[in-house]
Amino acid sequence: MKFYFTSISSKKALEVKKKYQDKYNQSQLIKADIIVAIGGDGFLLKTLHDYKNYYKPIYGINYGSVGFLMNQAIDSDLVETIKKSQSIKLKPLNMWAKNSDNEIFESIAFNEVSLMRQTYQAAKLKLSINGIERLKELICDGVLVATPAGSTAYNLSAHGSIIPLDSNLLALTPISAFRPRRWKGALLSENTKININVIDHLIRPVSVTADHNEFRNIVEVKIASAQNSSFELLFDNNHSIEERILKEQFIE
Amino acid sequence: MKFYFTSISSKKALEVKKKYQDKYNQSQLIKADIIVAIGGDGFLLKTLHDYKNYYKPIYGINYGSVGFLMNQAIDSDLVETIKKSQSIKLKPLNMWAKNSDNEIFESIAFNEVSLMRQTYQAAKLKLSINGIERLKELICDGVLVATPAGSTAYNLSAHGSIIPLDSNLLALTPISAFRPRRWKGALLSENTKININVIDHLIRPVSVTADHNEFRNIVEVKIASAQNSSFELLFDNNHSIEERILKEQFIE
Amino acid sequence: MKFYFTSISSKKALEVKKKYQDKYNQSQLIKADIIVAIGGDGFLLKTLHDYKNYYKPIYGINYGSVGFLMNQAIDSDLVETIKKSQSIKLKPLNMWAKNSDNEIFESIAFNEVSLMRQTYQAAKLKLSINGIERLKELICDGVLVATPAGSTAYNLSAHGSIIPLDSNLLALTPISAFRPRRWKGALLSENTKININVIDHLIRPVSVTADHNEFRNIVEVKIASAQNSSFELLFDNNHSIEERILKEQFIE
Amino acid sequence: MKFYFTSISSKKALEVKKKYQDKYNQSQLIKADIIVAIGGDGFLLKTLHDYKNYYKPIYGINYGSVGFLMNQAIDSDLVETIKKSQSIKLKPLNMWAKNSDNEIFESIAFNEVSLMRQTYQAAKLKLSINGIERLKELICDGVLVATPAGSTAYNLSAHGSIIPLDSNLLALTPISAFRPRRWKGALLSENTKININVIDHLIRPVSVTADHNEFRNIVEVKIASAQNSSFELLFDNNHSIEERILKEQFIE
Repeated sequence: MKFYFTSISSKKALEVKKKYQDKYNQSQLIKADIIVAIGGDGFLLKTLHDYKNYYKPIYGINYGSVGFLMNQAIDSDLVETIKKSQSIKLKPLNMWAKNSDNEIFESIAFNEVSLMRQTYQAAKLKLSINGIERLKELICDGVLVATPAGSTAYNLSAHGSIIPLDSNLLALTPISAFRPRRWKGALLSENTKININVIDHLIRPVSVTADHNEFRNIVEVKIASAQNSSFELLFDNNHSIEERILKEQFIE
Repeated sequence: MKFYFTSISSKKALEVKKKYQDKYNQSQLIKADIIVAIGGDGFLLKTLHDYKNYYKPIYGINYGSVGFLMNQAIDSDLVETIKKSQSIKLKPLNMWAKNSDNEIFESIAFNEVSLMRQTYQAAKLKLSINGIERLKELICDGVLVATPAGSTAYNLSAHGSIIPLDSNLLALTPISAFRPRRWKGALLSENTKININVIDHLIRPVSVTADHNEFRNIVEVKIASAQNSSFELLFDNNHSIEERILKEQFIE
Repeated sequence: MKFYFTSISSKKALEVKKKYQDKYNQSQLIKADIIVAIGGDGFLLKTLHDYKNYYKPIYGINYGSVGFLMNQAIDSDLVETIKKSQSIKLKPLNMWAKNSDNEIFESIAFNEVSLMRQTYQAAKLKLSINGIERLKELICDGVLVATPAGSTAYNLSAHGSIIPLDSNLLALTPISAFRPRRWKGALLSENTKININVIDHLIRPVSVTADHNEFRNIVEVKIASAQNSSFELLFDNNHSIEERILKEQFIE
Repeated sequence: MKFYFTSISSKKALEVKKKYQDKYNQSQLIKADIIVAIGGDGFLLKTLHDYKNYYKPIYGINYGSVGFLMNQAIDSDLVETIKKSQSIKLKPLNMWAKNSDNEIFESIAFNEVSLMRQTYQAAKLKLSINGIERLKELICDGVLVATPAGSTAYNLSAHGSIIPLDSNLLALTPISAFRPRRWKGALLSENTKININVIDHLIRPVSVTADHNEFRNIVEVKIASAQNSSFELLFDNNHSIEERILKEQFIE
């Protein structure tokens, strides 16, 4: 089994990477069977984005502050551990966005695509679902669309629901909805196409962020699940991601 | 097409039933192709329960106060309307409950199974999910498990999430959770088995209700989706239930 | 300083009471300067109710499961501790209720007065504030009115706000509001008079509970702050109740 | 009675202003008894800020989209109407802020002071209440402090509680709290001093906005109620502001 190790730049994580490389060798990325990402959830997201064109399974080892998608560091043999691991397919979101200069940006997002006001002026957004206008004017700080994997992250902070990995749903969640006053968002089938238009974009500028890729002065955003591409994350059998999402829902 | 018409006992609904029977004939229940229920959501639920052993498709016509699962009354030909209607399969919950006299009660529920304290004493409940204890002691007014179809009803009142019909999820939602203080419930895969034990049932009596069938002084409840039975509801094409659940999520 | 000691019946609490009585003597209730209640919040509430006609300051010592209103057990001299303690005036609620047999019940409540459905039938309530009808028909599990001291108890479980002790407010909080669907309750000035009428009480029976005194089959309830009576609780200087309510609001 | 009329620049509002000026004369600002602001809540806020040094009572007439703080346009005599009106004292917030260049900004705010992340990087904030650190690190989109008058505006959108005008409270409300995960904010006595420090401000820039005055790249903010200054708003007797706030809490 050939590994490509990558880590955050903390002293501890670099030491651990060195130790793994000494023991298991550092393969070339193109020839690796597995990418091993050493850090926290943020770094795993970054790794997914950086190496998305290689379509390699990723095994994360937690040396970060938030490790929801990571495995715990263990002493046992890495090859054996990975052989017995559980593979989870993450289906990302495809984001298409146009800014006020008619530039087009595309990105994938494993957690969420979020829109946010850039100044003190509240955002005014028009929301369409599968081509049908559903909210003519949402006045808000912003709005986000989260995958099941991302539903425990920003979505939860914005008062959205946690959704199980196998639920085939997306969470559409407003951030501080002002009008309609008590709109709580919606859970949508994963094959839903969501279009968002920014109203009065010159006096109410809005940015869009796909995971950690931010684009500013946006006028239109299209979001849909990437039906034909998926990415493989590996989880130790005794820390399955379903179990984690379940546990997250029963935190006391 | 043979119909069996049934209605609530309001003057208006009885008139409508009479009119339909005159025009389309009242078939025997056993020979009917379709049961037509004239009333509101509560009556539709009652009809589902009353005639559950016949496994007939049900077409509801709204003459009640809440008509979320009903079709609008129309003048066009009933046979044509039903031919073009959309069929939705509702998968109910199976509830098994034991009371303090060791009596066993079973019921199905299309909307929800809910437990509630019977006196001022808060309920103390132990919750297990697929055989694993997840909450050792939930102190609360009660707790409920809702189907997608029921997620817009009692579940929503108790601050649960609306879940789409095709999401294969159940909503587990606490009613006034006291400990853990801010537990918000969980969305669970529909193949989840939920067991609830009533702690200190003698001084903290609890009832369980499956839709509108209430059983008192309960000590244990098991809830699971009825995987092998399903019931057919018919919806006018222009008022599909998916559309309604979507609309419900975008109410301003 | 003359003490009257009272305790819950747990072995530990009885031992502690005996120890205090040996050291400081047990005065007659009528002659005592201070009532010392040994137990948890529930027992303190009971003590407040049991001895409300004596208008004695109460000093609680925590030997219960929830001790929000209690002082920690300490070894230092009780007389000195109490001399340096902070006195807080609790203004209770006056509850007046009438049942379906026209019987009248009155009670005070230090935490909250709550109404709750008695069977599976949702409660239908009419709410008037200072004589003006504000909700014609609240369909719900129930509703409660909490004092600031009670706002961290049942009120919080029912998704109500925590309100500071010196805020001169009452919290009116629905329990599982069904109609209006997203009614979140109200914060009201403490001099507000709240009247609640139970609609269709025969088929929708409702109980009312003032702290832990429950009355069933109620048709009308009047709730108002007891402006002319107040009760004194004593708190160690280093554990002031304001500090506790503040801390409760910053729990992580 | 001498009036100073001011309005938004919509055609309708300018016509109305002209009509009033023709009928009642336009006094010099300095000599006016009353400022009459013709527009919506946003314009009233602007008027309060623009003319704050004149300490004149303001009477708002609603020609805007949101008129919570405005009176309805009426045909009856303005002098008589104002004589019978109810005067409400608004106590604003004082905001003091320092940016990363050590520049100091001060502003008052009638509705709220809010902090918000400027880029996709979540804000990290340290919160102290009356000099005591209460949250070491709040990871969030932002946080706000609202007056009672402002509690129905941005505060409500961010899931804060509506607080009555006479409650002597401030609402401290997080915007999308990520850590602590379920922190819901706090209601604080109006004499509370709130200090907020921006952590890692270079990679996590944060702005502060007092009503509509925005300051960017902030490192520290101090917020307190302006105890010694207050502003007078006039309300028609039949549309008192208390009544409006009460109504807002009972919206169905």
